[in-house]
Amino acid sequence: MQVILLSGGSGKRLWPLSNDIRSKQFIKIFKNPNGGYESMLQRAFRQIKKVDANISIVVATAKSQVSMVRNHLGAVDISAEPCRRDTFPAVALTCAYLRDVKKINPDEPIVVCPVDSYVEDKYFLLLRKMAEMVAAGNINLALMGIKPTYPSSKYGYIIPAENNLWVFKEKPTEQIAAEYIAKGALWNGGIFAFKLGYILDKTKSIVGKNSYAEIFAQYETLPKISFDYAISEKEKNIAVAIYDGEWKDSGTWNTLSEVMEIPCIGDVLTDNTCTNLNVINETDIPLICMGLKDMIVAAGADGILVTDKIQSAQIKSYVEQIHQPSRYAEKSWGVFKIIDIEQESLTIKADIPAGQHMRYHSHNFRAETWNIISGEGTAIVDGKKLSVRAGDVVNLPVNCRHTIIAKTNLKIIEVQLGKDITIDDKIIYDFPEGVN
Amino acid sequence: MQVILLSGGSGKRLWPLSNDIRSKQFIKIFKNPNGGYESMLQRAFRQIKKVDANISIVVATAKSQVSMVRNHLGAVDISAEPCRRDTFPAVALTCAYLRDVKKINPDEPIVVCPVDSYVEDKYFLLLRKMAEMVAAGNINLALMGIKPTYPSSKYGYIIPAENNLWVFKEKPTEQIAAEYIAKGALWNGGIFAFKLGYILDKTKSIVGKNSYAEIFAQYETLPKISFDYAISEKEKNIAVAIYDGEWKDSGTWNTLSEVMEIPCIGDVLTDNTCTNLNVINETDIPLICMGLKDMIVAAGADGILVTDKIQSAQIKSYVEQIHQPSRYAEKSWGVFKIIDIEQESLTIKADIPAGQHMRYHSHNFRAETWNIISGEGTAIVDGKKLSVRAGDVVNLPVNCRHTIIAKTNLKIIEVQLGKDITIDDKIIYDFPEGVN
Repeated sequence: MQVILLSGGSGKRLWPLSNDIRSKQFIKIFKNPNGGYESMLQRAFRQIKKVDANISIVVATAKSQVSMVRNHLGAVDISAEPCRRDTFPAVALTCAYLRDVKKINPDEPIVVCPVDSYVEDKYFLLLRKMAEMVAAGNINLALMGIKPTYPSSKYGYIIPAENNLWVFKEKPTEQIAAEYIAKGALWNGGIFAFKLGYILDKTKSIVGKNSYAEIFAQYETLPKISFDYAISEKEKNIAVAIYDGEWKDSGTWNTLSEVMEIPCIGDVLTDNTCTNLNVINETDIPLICMGLKDMIVAAGADGILVTDKIQSAQIKSYVEQIHQPSRYAEKSWGVFKIIDIEQESLTIKADIPAGQHMRYHSHNFRAETWNIISGEGTAIVDGKKLSVRAGDVVNLPVNCRHTIIAKTNLKIIEVQLGKDITIDDKIIYDFPEGVN
Repeated sequence: MQVILLSGGSGKRLWPLSNDIRSKQFIKIFKNPNGGYESMLQRAFRQIKKVDANISIVVATAKSQVSMVRNHLGAVDISAEPCRRDTFPAVALTCAYLRDVKKINPDEPIVVCPVDSYVEDKYFLLLRKMAEMVAAGNINLALMGIKPTYPSSKYGYIIPAENNLWVFKEKPTEQIAAEYIAKGALWNGGIFAFKLGYILDKTKSIVGKNSYAEIFAQYETLPKISFDYAISEKEKNIAVAIYDGEWKDSGTWNTLSEVMEIPCIGDVLTDNTCTNLNVINETDIPLICMGLKDMIVAAGADGILVTDKIQSAQIKSYVEQIHQPSRYAEKSWGVFKIIDIEQESLTIKADIPAGQHMRYHSHNFRAETWNIISGEGTAIVDGKKLSVRAGDVVNLPVNCRHTIIAKTNLKIIEVQLGKDITIDDKIIYDFPEGVN
């Protein structure tokens, strides 16, 4: 059994904590067993491993989110999409990756599961059951149906029909949704199981090819269609596994606040007149809330949001008026945060965990200075190795090739100077020989 | 005519924008004629100069606020209190300063005026009238009475009595306040005029001395009494000038929000469902408010406050739970802001306007690195002059004596490293010879 975790999506509906790169599944709002906080992605990964530590997991994600996924999950298998299409191309690409790169047998049951739902552990037990249903060979496709708790107009429905068939309906009115539910309809959670070969055959017939190399190279020409549209709605030989438990979306501030196990996260003080208040403070300064009712407060490196819960649904048009680059990013090698912006300079704090390193790179239009503020490491500048520790300063002239390898946890204040500082001004090189 | 501007007070009632050093009169919330923002102190100073550009002003303030006053007003006369007492010692010290240091004639009329009220220009015209009343010589003391607009229980009252006498009453109940007002009572705004010699004589008789050197040296032994208690309530020969205009306190978030001419200051977006909302955003990240009613939001380097207006009165006990050093300070030479805090390091951004310089100083327990990010200047390290400009890095080892003089507007990222970084670890030296 192989799980494909779909970690897609992006956007600003959870601004200031989400942006083009950091989507909802990366926000750390759940208590983990060690007493810290974990993200939806980390939570789903942990829940699956709890069902069976040996289940193979591959994360299907956008190229721009690979570093973020590695930062959250470490050395996990990743199938990176060169650009965004829809769920069918994402699943097709990942299945091709599993066969051609990971050498998975076409008979292997695959379960596709999005990471952005807040669910109970038994949801993941059901994934195994779906894999077993597919492995038994009587059906081509297993879907998970979520037992509805109310006639929502926001979800897709699968409705039982004659001859063991299922009808798919997207976002009906509440009245029609109630009629569907009366007929035994379930919410379509977007969880599918199939044998690897099944989807590769379908891919071949839909897009004319199914090798990983070809699909990857021509990814942006693939049709932007959903898995339901391309596969599920056309398949006659389907079984549905029913999940009857907590299943919550976390795509808006209002729904995210509903899944917060702890109402206030971070350095937050609230008085005893606050009710139905959720606060996430990712900054390192204290936040005091007094007399707040039915509200959400979120503060991070990119901004501060103070909103009534119902009104929060309107956030998009306000966030679109903001044109500042994001100040916070989780990279494969650690975390960086912009701490000062001037016209011709940018000051950054980088946290690099022991053993990690940036890629070897140079900039055409800016010089940089590293102020090592804690830890030890090895800086490489134009091929020359240099042991550095707290208190050391490393000058990085324009065009010099540079990286730093953390021996212990390393913290750096990086001062960038140049007339045109952009994230695009970065040339990547192979690591110099003799350096790991 | 000489004006003494009393710029005292401190505290956290306007947290996160006020702290032990930065009190309400330093928060920039008023539109100035140049389109920028000005503080209450700057506003009062400008209003007085508008009445008569030649009026001499001395600011009486705490030693700890001298740098802040200079930052707001430039090269103004300052009488610094060595420690905090009350209004009588503050006025006595400043009067002694005026005679002994500034050589002001004992016959000169002096007007004492606090800076923390929001008033119209005509209030300052009245100061001149009070000086003229005192200069005429028929009375010893002129007070300003503010025409009450409602029976407040928060103010002091002066009530006309027989034989031209006035009775002083502090903070009556609203019912009693209404009775006072019916008798012609006025709010006591704490504005006094007298001849310089009058207060120096009173000082001699109350504390046994009146030379500036003696009062300054023994300041902390002076009685902690108010000017009203020490002088006004005992004086029989008083005249009262009546001010009939806007007069507002700005000592709490609720009252401060009432004097804000612009409801939202800084990088703030509000949706059209916000009502009776005041926002001050002093950070450089955007703040979005949606669906907020009767609220105050304040964000600064030290923290974020989100509060219902009425509930904001309870702020003190919550702020007392916060034990972080202030991250923002206005110094005589410019502004500094802490932008990163680690266990054994502190990163600061310093803005030094052209012509300004830090004092020549050293630290026993920390090394520093200056990263010049914009402008040009002269660094002096252990007596050695060094021309610096954007891109330069200056290493400042533990114990080295150092300063920097801004040739143009200078911006520096200063990285401090040490096991024990405190503001007290600072030894001041005279400027090295040959350097201005």
